[in-house]
Amino acid sequence: MIVDADRFLQDLDHLRSFGAQGTGVVRPAYSDADIAARHWLATRMEDAGLTPAFDAMGNLFGLVDGPSLLLGSHSDSQPEGGWLDGALGVVAALEIARASREQGGPAVSVVSFQDEEGRFGVTTGSAVWSGQLSLDVADQLTDHSGVALGDARKAMASVAGAHVDPSRFTGFIEMHIEQGPALDQGGLQIGVVTDIVGIRDMKITFGGQQNHAGTTPMALRRDAFQAVSQFNAVLNDRFRNVVTPQTVWTIGHVTLHPNASSIVPGRATFSMQWRDADVPRLTQMEKIVRDTAIEVAEAGGFTVEFGDMLGLEPVAMDARLRGALELAAQRAAPNAWQTMPSGALHDATNVARLMPVAMVFVPSIDGISHDFAEDTERKDLVAGLSVLADAVSAL
Amino acid sequence: MIVDADRFLQDLDHLRSFGAQGTGVVRPAYSDADIAARHWLATRMEDAGLTPAFDAMGNLFGLVDGPSLLLGSHSDSQPEGGWLDGALGVVAALEIARASREQGGPAVSVVSFQDEEGRFGVTTGSAVWSGQLSLDVADQLTDHSGVALGDARKAMASVAGAHVDPSRFTGFIEMHIEQGPALDQGGLQIGVVTDIVGIRDMKITFGGQQNHAGTTPMALRRDAFQAVSQFNAVLNDRFRNVVTPQTVWTIGHVTLHPNASSIVPGRATFSMQWRDADVPRLTQMEKIVRDTAIEVAEAGGFTVEFGDMLGLEPVAMDARLRGALELAAQRAAPNAWQTMPSGALHDATNVARLMPVAMVFVPSIDGISHDFAEDTERKDLVAGLSVLADAVSAL
Repeated sequence: MIVDADRFLQDLDHLRSFGAQGTGVVRPAYSDADIAARHWLATRMEDAGLTPAFDAMGNLFGLVDGPSLLLGSHSDSQPEGGWLDGALGVVAALEIARASREQGGPAVSVVSFQDEEGRFGVTTGSAVWSGQLSLDVADQLTDHSGVALGDARKAMASVAGAHVDPSRFTGFIEMHIEQGPALDQGGLQIGVVTDIVGIRDMKITFGGQQNHAGTTPMALRRDAFQAVSQFNAVLNDRFRNVVTPQTVWTIGHVTLHPNASSIVPGRATFSMQWRDADVPRLTQMEKIVRDTAIEVAEAGGFTVEFGDMLGLEPVAMDARLRGALELAAQRAAPNAWQTMPSGALHDATNVARLMPVAMVFVPSIDGISHDFAEDTERKDLVAGLSVLADAVSAL
Repeated sequence: MIVDADRFLQDLDHLRSFGAQGTGVVRPAYSDADIAARHWLATRMEDAGLTPAFDAMGNLFGLVDGPSLLLGSHSDSQPEGGWLDGALGVVAALEIARASREQGGPAVSVVSFQDEEGRFGVTTGSAVWSGQLSLDVADQLTDHSGVALGDARKAMASVAGAHVDPSRFTGFIEMHIEQGPALDQGGLQIGVVTDIVGIRDMKITFGGQQNHAGTTPMALRRDAFQAVSQFNAVLNDRFRNVVTPQTVWTIGHVTLHPNASSIVPGRATFSMQWRDADVPRLTQMEKIVRDTAIEVAEAGGFTVEFGDMLGLEPVAMDARLRGALELAAQRAAPNAWQTMPSGALHDATNVARLMPVAMVFVPSIDGISHDFAEDTERKDLVAGLSVLADAVSAL
C-alpha cells in the first residue's frame, strides 16, 4: 500500500485549525471546536468512501462494509493541548483507510473516540463503547465546572446514531505520540508498544498534632509534613530493589493543614501513584507503600488513613498485531526503533476488552505533551504512518 | 500587697463573656465583641481609680498620675481563640493596679494592646505604640477579607485620644499563658521568661520540570517535591549539631504546582521558619538552610529561589524585673517554677524598645492555645497573679 504523506500532513494541519491556539489546540470533548472537527472528519471519511457513524457518546466511526481492522485514536484535546495528541492516530487511520480503498488493500475502518482526555472521566468515550462504563453512569459524570456529561453530549444529539457493533472489527491499532522522552533521547523514530502499564493510585493521610511553631519543642511534635517526607525517603529506598527502569512512582499532590508557616502541620494528605506493566510488581509495591506508611505512623505517633485505591490493570499488546508492527518498524527505521511499554493510558486499554489491540509510537520532541509546545518532526510522523500502513498490509 | 483572687477570677470570667463561643472566644481586633470588651475594661479601670485612655490604634491604657510600672497584655483574640490568651495578662494587671491603689502600694498602670493576634499584621497595636510601625503604614494593612486597618479602626474613632507618652512608665511586665507544653509536662506552675526568641522565616522555591507521571522515567525526572523532601531530610540532619533543645524549625506551608496525582511536580514553594534566642545561632542556621537548598538544587538540576527573609531579633528580659519575678516565683511555687525562653512573640517584644520588660508564664493544659480548648487550672492562674503582685511590690 502506498500512502500519500502530503495528503496525510495536510489533513493533520487542517485538523489543527479547529480550536487552534498558538502552536497548540483547545478542543476539549463536546466543545464547539471538538464538534466542528468531528463533522469535518466525518466529511473526509465520506470523501474517502467510508460511512461515517456517530454513536450516542459522539465517538465517530468511518466504516467499511463487512469485517475490517479498526485504526484510530481520539480528536478531543486537553484544555491546553498539543496538536498531535490523539489527532495523529485519527488522521493516520484516515489516510490508510483511504489509500487502502484506492488501491484495493485490506478493509480498514477508522475511529475517533470521544473524551479520551477525560473532561468527564478517564478515556470516557472508549470506556462506554467497550462496555467498561454504562452510558447512564457516564451521563452523571461532571467536569470541573459542574457540567454533566449527559448535558454536554446533547450538543451532538442531532447526529447521534446506534451503537457500533464491535464484532465487525478484527483488531485495533492505535498510533500515538510517545508523550515521554525515551524515543527522542534515544534518537529513535518508532516505538512498538509491548504493554500499557497498570496504575495504582491512592490518597494517604497522616494525622499528627497541629501546634504553635514557636512554643512546641521539636521532641514533642507530631508534624504531619515530617511524616510525609520520611515516608517518601524510606519508600524511595525500599523500592530500589523491586523496580525496573520502566517502573515509575509519584507523589504529585500534597495538602498540609492548616498550611501556615507558624503552625506545625497537623494533617497531611498526599497522592501516591505507581505504574508498572507487571501485576505482581504492582501488588508488591502496594504492600511496601502500606507497610512503610504504617511503620512511619507507628514510629512517630501519627494516624494513617488510606483512601480508595484506583487500580487499572496492565494490558499486553496482541502478539500478532505487535509482530506486524515490529517487522514494519524494522523495514522503515532499521536500528531506529525499539519495543517499549506505554506509561500513559490510551483508548486501546478499553478496546482490548473487545479485540486484539496494538500501538505504535512516534517521538515527542523533548518528551513534551499536554502542552501547546508538543511537537514531532514531520519525517517521524511520516515514518509512523509508513509503519502502520506496512503492518496493516501484512495482516 | 494582698490581691483578691476571687475578684480577679470574676473579672476574667466576665471578660470571657465578650465574644464567647463554647469554651473559647471570638474577639478579633475591632470586632464588636472586642470593642465592647475594651469599653467594659475602661469602666473597670475607672472603678479602680485609674484614668482610662484610648489611643488612635485602640490600645487601652488605665493610667495613674506620675511615673508608674506598666502591666498588661492584650484583650483581642484569634479568630477562634482561647479565653486566656492576652485576657489573663490584662485582668491580672487590673487586679494588681486596683489592689495597689487600695493598699497604697506602688504606682501601677494597665494596658490592653490592640491587634496583638495580628488580624492586620504582627502585634500591630504595640508595634505602632512603640514606634516600630507608623500609623500611616499600619492603616494600609489589610485583613484576609481585604478590610484595611485604617477603615477598621474608625469603629473606635469616637473614643480615640492622644498618644500615651511611654516615658511615664518605668518598665513593663506581661503575664501570659505559656502556649506550649513545657510547664504542664513538667508539673510546674510558673515560668519566668529569660528571652523572647528571634524568628527567621522565608519562602523557598525549587523549580524542576513538570512532566507526565506515566511517561517520564524516574532517572529523567526533576521532581520539585522530591527536592523539598530531600532538603528537609538533609537539613534535619545538619541542624542536629547546631541546635539546643529550645531551638525549633518548621516547614509549615508547602505548595506544589500543579499539585495533581498524575503530574510530576514542576515547582514547590515552602515556608522555612526557625526560632532561637541566640542571634549567632539564628545566623548559623540561615547559612545551613541556604547552603543545603543550593546543594540539593545543584545535585538534582533544580533552580532555587529564596524569598524575602522576615527577621525578628531575640529580646532579652531585663535582669532587675526578671530577678524580682524569680524571687517571687520561688516564694509562691518553690520547686515548681523554672526560667525558660518564650517561643511565641508577645507585645513585650515591641515594648522592649522603650523600657525594661519582663514576662511571667503560667501553664497551658496540654500545651493547647489558639483553640477554644485552651485552659489553665484556676490555682495556676492565681499563683501567677501572686507572683506578679509580689514582684511588683518588691520593685
